[in-house]
Amino acid sequence: MQSRCVQVCIAGANGWLNRLDASKSKVQSLAQSSDQKFQTGSGDSNQTTYGMKNRNQKELTSPIQDFLEELYRENLAVKDGETATYIPELAKANPDWFGICLVTANGAVYEVGDTRQEFTIQSISKPLVYGLALEDNGREATLKKVGVEPTGDAFNSISLDPGTGRPRNPMINAGAIATAGLIAGKTAPSRFKRVLETFSRYAGRELKVEDTVYRSESETGHRNRAIGHMLRNFDKLTGDPAPKTENYFQQCSISVNCRDLGVIAATLANRGINPLTGKTALRGEYVESVLSVMGTCGMYDYAGEWLYNVGIPAKSGVAGGVLAVLPGQLGIGVFSPRLDVHGNSVRGIRICQELSRRLDLHLFNPPPVGTSAIRLKFTGAEFGSSHVRNLQDDQILRESANVIQVYQLQGNLTFASTEPVVHDVLENFKGMDYLIFDLRRVLSLNESAGHLFHSLIIKLAPLEKIIVFTHHEHLPLLRHMLKAKLKGKFDEQFHAFGDNDLALEWCENQLLEKFTDTRVTANRLKMADYQLLHDFSAAELAVVQPLLTSRAYKRGHEIISAGDEAREIFLLARGGASIYLPGEKRHRLASFSPGMCFGEMAFIDGAPRSANIVADTDVECHTLSLEDFTQLGKSHPTLKIKLLEHLCLDLTRKLRKANRELSVLE
Amino acid sequence: MQSRCVQVCIAGANGWLNRLDASKSKVQSLAQSSDQKFQTGSGDSNQTTYGMKNRNQKELTSPIQDFLEELYRENLAVKDGETATYIPELAKANPDWFGICLVTANGAVYEVGDTRQEFTIQSISKPLVYGLALEDNGREATLKKVGVEPTGDAFNSISLDPGTGRPRNPMINAGAIATAGLIAGKTAPSRFKRVLETFSRYAGRELKVEDTVYRSESETGHRNRAIGHMLRNFDKLTGDPAPKTENYFQQCSISVNCRDLGVIAATLANRGINPLTGKTALRGEYVESVLSVMGTCGMYDYAGEWLYNVGIPAKSGVAGGVLAVLPGQLGIGVFSPRLDVHGNSVRGIRICQELSRRLDLHLFNPPPVGTSAIRLKFTGAEFGSSHVRNLQDDQILRESANVIQVYQLQGNLTFASTEPVVHDVLENFKGMDYLIFDLRRVLSLNESAGHLFHSLIIKLAPLEKIIVFTHHEHLPLLRHMLKAKLKGKFDEQFHAFGDNDLALEWCENQLLEKFTDTRVTANRLKMADYQLLHDFSAAELAVVQPLLTSRAYKRGHEIISAGDEAREIFLLARGGASIYLPGEKRHRLASFSPGMCFGEMAFIDGAPRSANIVADTDVECHTLSLEDFTQLGKSHPTLKIKLLEHLCLDLTRKLRKANRELSVLE
Repeated sequence: MQSRCVQVCIAGANGWLNRLDASKSKVQSLAQSSDQKFQTGSGDSNQTTYGMKNRNQKELTSPIQDFLEELYRENLAVKDGETATYIPELAKANPDWFGICLVTANGAVYEVGDTRQEFTIQSISKPLVYGLALEDNGREATLKKVGVEPTGDAFNSISLDPGTGRPRNPMINAGAIATAGLIAGKTAPSRFKRVLETFSRYAGRELKVEDTVYRSESETGHRNRAIGHMLRNFDKLTGDPAPKTENYFQQCSISVNCRDLGVIAATLANRGINPLTGKTALRGEYVESVLSVMGTCGMYDYAGEWLYNVGIPAKSGVAGGVLAVLPGQLGIGVFSPRLDVHGNSVRGIRICQELSRRLDLHLFNPPPVGTSAIRLKFTGAEFGSSHVRNLQDDQILRESANVIQVYQLQGNLTFASTEPVVHDVLENFKGMDYLIFDLRRVLSLNESAGHLFHSLIIKLAPLEKIIVFTHHEHLPLLRHMLKAKLKGKFDEQFHAFGDNDLALEWCENQLLEKFTDTRVTANRLKMADYQLLHDFSAAELAVVQPLLTSRAYKRGHEIISAGDEAREIFLLARGGASIYLPGEKRHRLASFSPGMCFGEMAFIDGAPRSANIVADTDVECHTLSLEDFTQLGKSHPTLKIKLLEHLCLDLTRKLRKANRELSVLE
Repeated sequence: MQSRCVQVCIAGANGWLNRLDASKSKVQSLAQSSDQKFQTGSGDSNQTTYGMKNRNQKELTSPIQDFLEELYRENLAVKDGETATYIPELAKANPDWFGICLVTANGAVYEVGDTRQEFTIQSISKPLVYGLALEDNGREATLKKVGVEPTGDAFNSISLDPGTGRPRNPMINAGAIATAGLIAGKTAPSRFKRVLETFSRYAGRELKVEDTVYRSESETGHRNRAIGHMLRNFDKLTGDPAPKTENYFQQCSISVNCRDLGVIAATLANRGINPLTGKTALRGEYVESVLSVMGTCGMYDYAGEWLYNVGIPAKSGVAGGVLAVLPGQLGIGVFSPRLDVHGNSVRGIRICQELSRRLDLHLFNPPPVGTSAIRLKFTGAEFGSSHVRNLQDDQILRESANVIQVYQLQGNLTFASTEPVVHDVLENFKGMDYLIFDLRRVLSLNESAGHLFHSLIIKLAPLEKIIVFTHHEHLPLLRHMLKAKLKGKFDEQFHAFGDNDLALEWCENQLLEKFTDTRVTANRLKMADYQLLHDFSAAELAVVQPLLTSRAYKRGHEIISAGDEAREIFLLARGGASIYLPGEKRHRLASFSPGMCFGEMAFIDGAPRSANIVADTDVECHTLSLEDFTQLGKSHPTLKIKLLEHLCLDLTRKLRKANRELSVLE
């Protein structure tokens, strides 16, 4: 243990998350005073923290882990408050137990102290059961039975609305018992089974009831039984109130540890999906309701100050647990049994306050969303498809493809992040005929963003401006919404491609059709039509032609395979061919039309073929072998010079394009 | 008006922001019933909405504008509630006035209806004056005079804490009068001047007091005067309470319009900075406090339900204004004088509810932050600096530069968005010797993110792993924090470059020093050391050498200028040279060491020079003119073939590098 302590002391001296403007001395003296306690206290505990594990593997500890350990040490000396005594079982808790666990909405877990010590969840069960009640009954029916207004009264007050008998909110006992009565299920055991399964999904492990606590709760729970009967009197419970009250005792007696609280909190932060298991514990639409009642009623008669000082929706339990949720970001679990007069864990409150202050977590203090949804914006003239075009088409596209506008979007598309995209499109739509929305880096899209895209489509369609989506498959809501809203025009107005390259190529082809009357036909080219031979005289062609070998490939055939020795250069006579990275059939690097050459780079530098070239259609081509090319230097040096100059030109053109595109992406 | 109405009806029929699961018929019938009203009602008003202006200019209207108009039409028929009558001036309001304004934290303004109609701000002044009181006194001193707990009482209740006489919160009149007493200034007029200036900064225009309302408030304000004396009795006001109460009457009588409310709300959403003027109306650190009291106490005895249903901190005024703030995202202003029994604008509440529901704005329902702070991650082997190296160095870097790791970061760096970056670094640090954090696309960085970077530096420094920042100038907090925290080690441990290219080059040079014993010296190269001539025999060199012209350039001299005709290719003999885009001195495209050639692309394809090449040091080079190169094909075709083959090789190498880098960035 000694070495661990030394490391923690070093971290403490660095004081990395103390404010610049705060005095360091306070932190250091706290660290020293709690030093000894830390050694003995941790020596007693039987669980392994991540921090310890990392050190044993000689990994670097995370600064976030260091910070939690610093917080832990600083608060070990805090001994204010008393453990709950209203039932004998809770009074048995070791008042010194102390654990902190922080879990991000991505599922990164940081924990320190007694995070594997089991204790009963108590009132922290209330928001979770409320969520299940919402799923079972919907918001409206639930609100008829239980309100959502904070009350200045204590946790065990009866607090029924004088007129309706409706409990003021689901965080006081009366509201929680009424909520327990809303859980679907024919029998008390079947209802509780659903509650326990739900809690287990939140925690990501199978939870159990702590029977001694449950019996103790049940034996002493006369006040809560009285509440049950009062609720029955006002028809806020139906049938016999006793089994519902019993269900309430059971839900409070579910055993969890501090790490569970962190994971449960992170599940709420992650829209109801447990970030470790990927399983849904609460339907996303109800998360905001659960967090709202936590935000206004979660810390008993302390709601205003809690939101003011901490700004994180939270719920405490009398066994010493505190669960706090920063929506979209992270969850916090703290466990320390000593309670203040409100019934909240003293250290739990301090830790939440410190975390909020030192990590800038206050919910009302987020950074502006900014225009960060637009990752990159470029035109088809700046960055074209990988289709290698002939000089004429290339020239047309260089001059006209600026009507193709690509928006590379990113992050979470919500109203506020999508608004700047819409704004930008509407400011610039006159110069655009094709808008490509690349959604590859979009993490999520909500309905209001979907509506905005739909609006853009119907606004731009009459102006013959086309919207194309790429990489939209991971956002099924978009297609679903557009299909529902565009109705019969969906097939005509919804354009989508697997990637940008295909979308760009499609837009380019549409443009070229407008600009060129005669398209390249499927007829075989004449020799002088090949780019590599384009100004060769008949006499020169008569020398070169016998060196060329004709080859034919069926569609799908691999013309060149990665790793092969490069023995020839290819001139494409008929059909189309594309380059793909080995193993990535879908990622096209380039494609070629008749007249173009391919396979020239390995031909030049002698490296093994670096990619596969596949026949997109039935293909005919001519090959010039390395031997014949070498030989040509001796027999007809002028012709070899001409071919090399053409190769240089071809490479220069490609390099200019690549450099242009690099400057767009950088 | 007719054509505008038709357009709005079309937008209504599209119903773009109606939920997919909601029945459309309700919306359409509402639209039809309010149709006539819309024509006459809008005809009366004298202001121009953005929507109208856009149409006159034949621009496309924004779908967000359409949506606000739809909302406006839907709610025109809502005539519930009564205008305030407690002072005669308010009773004069036209109950049909109705305006909606939405302003994003970026400063995009959308408005519909009577958004330029002036009215008095009334209670909406309370959070703004509270913010000024916090700036003047700090949080602690302010909390001693006014609490932050919600109360179930009405807006004009006295609600002083029984023990301390402290008003429960600053949103009730008692709390607001106590808050007015906290404003710094020697005289009542000087205090009010500061209030008015502050409000004007929020609104971005010079606001004035509506004198008739002020006189009316003052004449009838006996209840508020009583409150003033009660506060004086409990020492929550000092000195004569009368001028403080008078200040309160004045602040309530400041005249605003609906658009002002939207801009004020957006200013609070944008951390206190008016997004239209860029001026600070409230120091960012106090924004969370102002929004907290709005969140729990802003809508009188309706706080819990408001947060539950709408989930946006808001404040209403009895003249019919409602201001709502979605932190980091947007502000909403609504104006409609008919009030419900709580004193809140009926339409104002409906509009906020609809906006929240249909735009998914509930504060507790944000999308997960995700790992979106990492925009791109690549190694120095995948993407190198633009320094064109000789073959040997190139090979070394291809094999070893994977210890250079670039993290391109983006968005707002907060604890939750930076945690995944730290996590990734600590998972992979063993394979990294150099970490480049590219901050170009980072919008903001808060202290907790700064602390995490500091922690990484001090953790990695003992392992001789170096952290390099690029593009950090727009985030002065980072350098400031690191300077304060690294202290004497700052100069040694803080590495920063203007861009990635320079950082990559620096890391590559450090790597090359480790790998190569003999560095290229400043001595002049031998002819065979030039890449273009590297396997030329003495006899071949004897032919080529006379064709080369020696040239010398002073440091800073432009060797090649963009637009020039390309008459020669350059072989660099001594010193260094770099390519810059014309007009962008700082953006380096490539740089060259002795032995390399440059200017080859325009030499090959005959295009005008596309960039400037500048001597980084005093430079000596050799040039080969186009005429001599052409001539060489006739006199010594074998040598020209050899030169062309070398050029092809050089181009192929550059194209391979560019393609590799494109695949990294794509």
